[in-house]
Amino acid sequence: MANYNVVPLSKLVEQFERLPGIGSKTAQRLAYFVLNMPKDQAVEFSNAIVDAHEKIRYCATCCNFSEGEHCPVCKSNTRDKSVICVVETPRDAIALESTHEYNGVYHVLHGAISPLNGIGPDQLYIKQLLSRLSDDTVKEVIMATNPTVEGEATAMYISRLLKPMGIKVTRLAYGIPVGGDLEYADEVTLARALEGRNEL
Amino acid sequence: MANYNVVPLSKLVEQFERLPGIGSKTAQRLAYFVLNMPKDQAVEFSNAIVDAHEKIRYCATCCNFSEGEHCPVCKSNTRDKSVICVVETPRDAIALESTHEYNGVYHVLHGAISPLNGIGPDQLYIKQLLSRLSDDTVKEVIMATNPTVEGEATAMYISRLLKPMGIKVTRLAYGIPVGGDLEYADEVTLARALEGRNEL
Repeated sequence: MANYNVVPLSKLVEQFERLPGIGSKTAQRLAYFVLNMPKDQAVEFSNAIVDAHEKIRYCATCCNFSEGEHCPVCKSNTRDKSVICVVETPRDAIALESTHEYNGVYHVLHGAISPLNGIGPDQLYIKQLLSRLSDDTVKEVIMATNPTVEGEATAMYISRLLKPMGIKVTRLAYGIPVGGDLEYADEVTLARALEGRNEL
Repeated sequence: MANYNVVPLSKLVEQFERLPGIGSKTAQRLAYFVLNMPKDQAVEFSNAIVDAHEKIRYCATCCNFSEGEHCPVCKSNTRDKSVICVVETPRDAIALESTHEYNGVYHVLHGAISPLNGIGPDQLYIKQLLSRLSDDTVKEVIMATNPTVEGEATAMYISRLLKPMGIKVTRLAYGIPVGGDLEYADEVTLARALEGRNEL
């Protein structure tokens, strides 16, 4: 798309185009929006990007994003340190947090085993998980990886590593999503929902 | 959404949430994507925002975005200076450029008359348009404002100003879908609209 050779604008559009799910039209719309912002807001936006990169690191315990050495969840005294919920990404941890039903701690793998994409167990933060299990604090590890082929494979891989250590390994329940429509549920999900049926 | 009080991350998410059409989930996805970028790419993104603000100004002639005092279209010797195409935004000019059917110059109003939003003729770059018509260079003004109520009102308002000056004022043909947005019209439709323009 010719931007009349206004180079700084084309560059900004390009930057937005790199973001996931942002096509060229949207990138253009966003770039123009940023251009029309008051200058101090644009500076704020610009700084937020660099700040995020400079100030955020991985928590030394759970590998989630953190400002300090340990994240607020790991530092907290009210969280149950005997249960670790293993997730693929920090966003998954946020999703679980928003249920307000979980009071344990997390472990973020930063991905899932995916041979097609060249991601093996060594690229994930599995060693860091194992090192947390060396003393007897942890009683249960909940595998909350995604219900995809990759997430399943990762859950299986880790559960095989942990079972010989005598730790209870659980997996999030499969079933029909609340508020969903049975008619539109896929066969696999329905089959799993039947399998896992509970007594009322 | 609790980001575990990772302040720089929350701030980045907030910045993305401010953008038009970006909801909280998308903002989160984009923020995490930026966080996972290599640092030099993030710095590049950050700089592109500030650069766009610092280096881009309005063309002294047509009020389009420009790096120098005059934009490439106004500086060009091959463009027909006797025809001015009046558009609401720089993006509309880009859309028209992409038809490759138009060889005149542009004038960007930076908006449309919209009393509901408190935008009157004085907030638009109409004076700058009138000052371009003081000599006899310009033979035709094409009103290419959006086919919306605001765009129509703006076209009517300007055509009433220009007609006493003896300048031919035309309007894009209704090949463009009514209620649509010029920016999203396809090139063929836009080209048809240019071909079939009518005198107001």
